[in-house]
Amino acid sequence: MASGGPVVPSRGALRPVDPRRVQITGGFWAQRQAVNGTATIEHCRTWLDRLGWTGNFATTGAGTARRRGREFSDSEVYKHVEAMCWESVRPGGTDYAARLDELTAMIAGAQAADGYLHTAFGRPGQPARYSDLNFGHELYCAGHLIQAGVAAARTGRAAGLLEVARGAADHVCDTFTDAGLCGHPEIETALVELFRVTGEQRYLDQAARFVARRGHRSLPEHEFGWRYFQDAVPVRDGEVFAGHAVRALYLAAGAVDVAVETGDDALLAGVARQFDRTLARRTYVTGGMGSRHLDESFGDDFVLPPDRAYSETCAGVATVMLAHRLLLATGDLRYGDIADRVLHNVVATAVADDGQAFFYANTLHQRTVTEAVPADREQLRFGGGPRAPWFEVSCCLNNVARLLASLGTYLVTEDDGGMQLHHYAPMTVEAAGMRLRVDTGYPDDGGVVVTVEEAPDAPRTLTLRVPGWARDVAAPPVPKVYRPGDQVRLDLPVKPRWTFPDPRIDATRGCAAVEAGPVVMCAESIDQEDGVTLDDIQVDTSVAPQATAVKGRLVQPVERDWPYTGLVDGRESSNPIVVTLVPYHRWARRGPSAMRIWLPIATP
Amino acid sequence: MASGGPVVPSRGALRPVDPRRVQITGGFWAQRQAVNGTATIEHCRTWLDRLGWTGNFATTGAGTARRRGREFSDSEVYKHVEAMCWESVRPGGTDYAARLDELTAMIAGAQAADGYLHTAFGRPGQPARYSDLNFGHELYCAGHLIQAGVAAARTGRAAGLLEVARGAADHVCDTFTDAGLCGHPEIETALVELFRVTGEQRYLDQAARFVARRGHRSLPEHEFGWRYFQDAVPVRDGEVFAGHAVRALYLAAGAVDVAVETGDDALLAGVARQFDRTLARRTYVTGGMGSRHLDESFGDDFVLPPDRAYSETCAGVATVMLAHRLLLATGDLRYGDIADRVLHNVVATAVADDGQAFFYANTLHQRTVTEAVPADREQLRFGGGPRAPWFEVSCCLNNVARLLASLGTYLVTEDDGGMQLHHYAPMTVEAAGMRLRVDTGYPDDGGVVVTVEEAPDAPRTLTLRVPGWARDVAAPPVPKVYRPGDQVRLDLPVKPRWTFPDPRIDATRGCAAVEAGPVVMCAESIDQEDGVTLDDIQVDTSVAPQATAVKGRLVQPVERDWPYTGLVDGRESSNPIVVTLVPYHRWARRGPSAMRIWLPIATP
Repeated sequence: MASGGPVVPSRGALRPVDPRRVQITGGFWAQRQAVNGTATIEHCRTWLDRLGWTGNFATTGAGTARRRGREFSDSEVYKHVEAMCWESVRPGGTDYAARLDELTAMIAGAQAADGYLHTAFGRPGQPARYSDLNFGHELYCAGHLIQAGVAAARTGRAAGLLEVARGAADHVCDTFTDAGLCGHPEIETALVELFRVTGEQRYLDQAARFVARRGHRSLPEHEFGWRYFQDAVPVRDGEVFAGHAVRALYLAAGAVDVAVETGDDALLAGVARQFDRTLARRTYVTGGMGSRHLDESFGDDFVLPPDRAYSETCAGVATVMLAHRLLLATGDLRYGDIADRVLHNVVATAVADDGQAFFYANTLHQRTVTEAVPADREQLRFGGGPRAPWFEVSCCLNNVARLLASLGTYLVTEDDGGMQLHHYAPMTVEAAGMRLRVDTGYPDDGGVVVTVEEAPDAPRTLTLRVPGWARDVAAPPVPKVYRPGDQVRLDLPVKPRWTFPDPRIDATRGCAAVEAGPVVMCAESIDQEDGVTLDDIQVDTSVAPQATAVKGRLVQPVERDWPYTGLVDGRESSNPIVVTLVPYHRWARRGPSAMRIWLPIATP
Repeated sequence: MASGGPVVPSRGALRPVDPRRVQITGGFWAQRQAVNGTATIEHCRTWLDRLGWTGNFATTGAGTARRRGREFSDSEVYKHVEAMCWESVRPGGTDYAARLDELTAMIAGAQAADGYLHTAFGRPGQPARYSDLNFGHELYCAGHLIQAGVAAARTGRAAGLLEVARGAADHVCDTFTDAGLCGHPEIETALVELFRVTGEQRYLDQAARFVARRGHRSLPEHEFGWRYFQDAVPVRDGEVFAGHAVRALYLAAGAVDVAVETGDDALLAGVARQFDRTLARRTYVTGGMGSRHLDESFGDDFVLPPDRAYSETCAGVATVMLAHRLLLATGDLRYGDIADRVLHNVVATAVADDGQAFFYANTLHQRTVTEAVPADREQLRFGGGPRAPWFEVSCCLNNVARLLASLGTYLVTEDDGGMQLHHYAPMTVEAAGMRLRVDTGYPDDGGVVVTVEEAPDAPRTLTLRVPGWARDVAAPPVPKVYRPGDQVRLDLPVKPRWTFPDPRIDATRGCAAVEAGPVVMCAESIDQEDGVTLDDIQVDTSVAPQATAVKGRLVQPVERDWPYTGLVDGRESSNPIVVTLVPYHRWARRGPSAMRIWLPIATP
């Protein structure tokens, strides 16, 4: 029987749990999974059809219709297929079997006889195949096709799609045996997963070749530099992630997959080292990655401006993917911390309540109130502004959809000795020969109660991740023979706390943020007292923050004709105020607004 | 006889002085003018020839050769011509008469029979004329051709170029009578100057039409938005400059020109109001403008990150152009302040000592030490990194060259009652019926001695600008009958001073900078004590800064796996140090280095 989630390594410290065996039954994520499984997936389908991105598969065979969408639009259809596969087998989900069959036929119909499949290249009037490795996204699209095929195989949906994916993969292996790279990594992780599904060694070999080949400046030179494509330094030799954030994270995920399957521990350690340094120096407090709009890339160490944060939603999805792979490979529970943070502050922030509008980028500071985006508008630009229903570059929507549909598999792992709970939600889990029920109000409430419903007679270790912000909480005890009705309790201190940035982050000097559990808080303009603008508040960090408010003062700006003077501060009178806070993931849900996470600290 | 500089309004509060009547005889700018007039102009010519940008004019007639360079490369040849015209008449300059005749013939030979002139459009195999108003830069190039023709007429060089420019201008007027705009403003100011040279009313009318037409979203929609092209809000209605900085400033210059010649005081006041607000909220301490790399644009108010500053060199040139026009129109001496700042901290910074390498962007904080750029390398990317000999987009080099060659005209003005000295350099000046000699060591020394060498028997007012940073200095007294040998003295306090930013600029909170006169200072890594990195210094602003050093301390970074904690500051021990400073315009002249202008203030 088909089984498995998006990532099923053949070895590693921990094993993933099939998403069918984790049912999120309520709370923060059940609501979001439900909206995702219906509204978001329908929304994506509507837009993919309306804009002709699905239609490209049906019409390119004729060679006459004008192809629509950007050069990577095929991948959106593949991610949509992948999302529907996971949703179809999610406990409580919607089965899209019929629609998947229909799309599979359409995709298969566009495949060339030699296995090549891309609707924007190689046909009359189109650029030649692989004529633009930097930006053509052909291998990137093939990668997403393969991931969709893998999802089809593991969910028993979209019959025939695995064969289409194999045909495309074989063509890639034949074509790129000796040279060539895609400007956008993605094929690497996809080929490894295809190897895992099929057992076909050539896919793993080709993935390993792509990883080893990168970093030697073999892609054509570009104004963004080789670093943008991760082609400046060999993958195993890097010190820190650099260049385009999503590309860097996808490549790292693929490198972990290759390392795990080939036993290349040095490669695994290299990626882990780079991720560690990226977390320590190049990551926003939200867990967001990528601070540069120009090339959607990581900035230098500690260059993390809140008001020009990029923090692309897809980079958030990719961070969860990478952290999960490193967790499985190493068993280091700390990787759950960054995933927890990204899920609550990037992924949850990106999606509108109705599941039909999205942030492409997730800034940490919005100074001006932008115009709302009409529900029928395809946004050309994606870096700023409110959530939008669709973008010319709409990678993030389907990426979130496939993550949320398969979220269960990211929450729990197992090994020979027991089960590990990495994330807390009301749920039932079957793993390691046990069945558990988890009751919790996390993240609003820090209490977690795990009730054993079934367990073997042999001892089991039940491990509950204690987040870094709760390090004084003792992890609950371990191996024992559990009986039905046994309970394990964890009490995490989710009360609001002040957080201060490393002083080397120039952009947040003299500021503090409030966090509550994994949730980053923000001040939104709409909630503040009359006459209070976010430019003019200062907070008193000597007073503990409350759930939705902190004490502070309003300082009157001094308007000058030149903003640099011999006067420190340069503010006039100050009045005590209460600054109202909301979870960052709630911002801009009541209309466009100004917002800031980092709050200037009142100076005496 | 030919006369006049780049800007010769027919009315206004002040009149410009012909650049031939201002001879800079020594000091800061004489050195730079000398290098510019020989090395830089030769360097530009060499590269323009090597890359085929001049050759495009000779070969396009044949219609077979592959055109080289970007769509705006013609403009570089025109700016090069303009620079050589001013240089040719500059007192002590180099006369490029023969070379100008040669280039004029080449340019004239590429002009179509109907007056149209652009080497990248309209010929077989090229895009149609005006097929890409957003980015084709056709009217932009025509504008620079016209400015070159105006310079030719006013300097008596490049005979025939004015007629070529008129032909192009007539074609523009015929084509764009009723509709159409260029994505990159420049034609507006050029057409007004052509009107001033020729007296032909249609050029002024067309310039006024272009200005009035802009701001109504008539250009095609683009992902950067209409604001990028200044096409979102009518010119007279704007609150602050927005979008692409160079475009905004060129348009503003053209709008002032139109306002002055048509007596449109509301338009003039509108531009002045926007410039004032831009200075108060969207300008770096260096005078640099434009804080976004993505679209080379202004950021929102107070978004001025030093470490992602763009501050394009061309925006600096454009700021000097605009400030000069507003000064002439209004007589408000404050416009000299921003020009002084930009000249000493953007223009002077951009050019290498040998005049053969340039910053395209002028960041205020360089965290990492980049690789040097070889002298034969054309840089693809321009935003970061050290000075480079040439860029694929090399707008800034020739722009600086034409400014420096004509710099004299920006220093002094006259009116019916006397003469105004806006900038201080050792120089001789003839204006308002007087001849003066200025002796000064400015900006290193604040003493300025003006000696009258000739004067009429009638009273004259001699006005010396007192910079904003020296407001407690009394301006010297006024109208009187001067005699040869009379002296006027000004003593400006150029000793180093602490400067603090408006607290609404988040990116520089808790920092101070040192300024000395108009010169912004910086700390460069190469000058610091062993073991001192710029990431880890804090300065003591309670102690007055010395000429090249301030007191401070070194704080040891605490390396953590996550940079956001419950601990304020999070630094360990601190050791007293001396932080060595150099003028910002001197940075990276001894090889690539790290640098910062804004220095974190030591907290108790």
